[in-house]
Amino acid sequence: MVVADVDPFAVMNVVGLLAFAIAGALKAADAGLDIFGVGVLGVVTALGGGTTRDVLVDRLPASLAAVGEMSVALVGVGLALVLIHSLHGQVRDHPAFLTSDAIGLSAFAATGALVGVQAGVSPFGIVILATITAVGGGSIADILIGRVPVVLRDDFYATPAVVGGVAFLVARALGAPTGVPSALCAALVFTVRMLALRYEWRLPQV
Amino acid sequence: MVVADVDPFAVMNVVGLLAFAIAGALKAADAGLDIFGVGVLGVVTALGGGTTRDVLVDRLPASLAAVGEMSVALVGVGLALVLIHSLHGQVRDHPAFLTSDAIGLSAFAATGALVGVQAGVSPFGIVILATITAVGGGSIADILIGRVPVVLRDDFYATPAVVGGVAFLVARALGAPTGVPSALCAALVFTVRMLALRYEWRLPQV
Amino acid sequence: MVVADVDPFAVMNVVGLLAFAIAGALKAADAGLDIFGVGVLGVVTALGGGTTRDVLVDRLPASLAAVGEMSVALVGVGLALVLIHSLHGQVRDHPAFLTSDAIGLSAFAATGALVGVQAGVSPFGIVILATITAVGGGSIADILIGRVPVVLRDDFYATPAVVGGVAFLVARALGAPTGVPSALCAALVFTVRMLALRYEWRLPQV
Repeated sequence: MVVADVDPFAVMNVVGLLAFAIAGALKAADAGLDIFGVGVLGVVTALGGGTTRDVLVDRLPASLAAVGEMSVALVGVGLALVLIHSLHGQVRDHPAFLTSDAIGLSAFAATGALVGVQAGVSPFGIVILATITAVGGGSIADILIGRVPVVLRDDFYATPAVVGGVAFLVARALGAPTGVPSALCAALVFTVRMLALRYEWRLPQV
Repeated sequence: MVVADVDPFAVMNVVGLLAFAIAGALKAADAGLDIFGVGVLGVVTALGGGTTRDVLVDRLPASLAAVGEMSVALVGVGLALVLIHSLHGQVRDHPAFLTSDAIGLSAFAATGALVGVQAGVSPFGIVILATITAVGGGSIADILIGRVPVVLRDDFYATPAVVGGVAFLVARALGAPTGVPSALCAALVFTVRMLALRYEWRLPQV
Repeated sequence: MVVADVDPFAVMNVVGLLAFAIAGALKAADAGLDIFGVGVLGVVTALGGGTTRDVLVDRLPASLAAVGEMSVALVGVGLALVLIHSLHGQVRDHPAFLTSDAIGLSAFAATGALVGVQAGVSPFGIVILATITAVGGGSIADILIGRVPVVLRDDFYATPAVVGGVAFLVARALGAPTGVPSALCAALVFTVRMLALRYEWRLPQV
């Protein structure tokens, strides 16, 4: 298989689905949910952002149209169940949770931007779609378990996605070849998110 | 009127709208809302799941397109107002609430599966649509009144809908005549839900 | 410019976007959010109702399709940032907040009714769209910051929008010229809302 033949959307989508299914399932375990709650929250976190994205651009969500997305999400939940039994200490601050969540954020920001281009939305629309796709699943999951969504608790949760969306636009405007804008977007989201976690970045109060 | 001429969707839809409008209005009374809140929560519970279902399969929601759904929901709210004054004790655990909620869950799981078939979604998509249509209205209502949605508090709220969705798929695959898969789905959701309530079924903790 | 040439939707939309961006940003400041939270809540409050409205009638949301809505929302957030530093006392009950919120409610009820007519929905559908467009953005914002939405806490938040939607229908049925039904709707929503705040109107308990 030649690299040029790889569909950037498909790669980012599978990575994001797996990472967010793991992050969502770990979050459910942290909240003390039982095995059904763990499965539901893993699936909702994995499928929520992309389904919202597809509804916004007025197309049948990929999560409903084919069996692929749900299958990948269930594999992710399975991996999380194995992981849960080997984790020690608070799941909320565990590197396994924070890293899988950051990977999901990065990959889904890229899928949001790619779908925005396909749907012919405005530049703002592309940044909005990148951000909503990235933070959507986790926010729905937080609301379901009665928490204020992380997107409002943590300054650098949506901010990295906004930065990634803008980088995607710039790379496209500069004529970067297929796959480069989305890879750059994902890499930047991940880097900014991990740095923000490591150095506890905060935005100023009003 | 010959039974074969009855549209399974229309029957299930009216039953579900009435039952969920009653359940939603009773839930609002239980939460101490005033008459406007009771009306809003009844209507939202009745129309919420089906509207979400229609948005997901990319069609104009039946709740907006015609006056029928809203009219039935308002009749349900009216019935609930009569009922509220004759109920004694906690509404939350009252058989009138639990039974109307279970009927709504059953009928709407069937409408979700039927719409999924029409929209040409995948088998997973049909189970997802059956589940979202069944639990959607009650979950939106719970979030509006600041409760963790019952779908996450009670293991056997979404589980019956999943079971019913799978039964619908199996009946269709076996070539059951029109109306049988949806009737089987609804009957199974109702039975599993009522048994789970009666015997306080729980899924194992992770 | 002749008044007859002004698009009623465009006018109501810009007024609503500005007013709700200000109201949402003030609400975020009241809730103690930082500058990013203020921006997000302002934008979500401004764009949330209209985006929900567009998704419901099955069209690409105006907030994504073009840069205009986001630009206006950001101007509103900027105005709010200036305002925040000159406000004294509790933002929640401040006339600046309550008035901008009432203006947003009024203008967006009118846009909801206008889009409903375009989409060919039923009379009930027009009242529902007017109401959801009016209360949608503020409700999403409230849920994001973990509050019970004002639509359920305050009887006369959705009620004015319902009244305005009905007035819109009546004016249209009586053959009022373009722009009159929406202007009447907005004026009535604003008047009812401000009177309800001034005289602390309540609906009776069940």
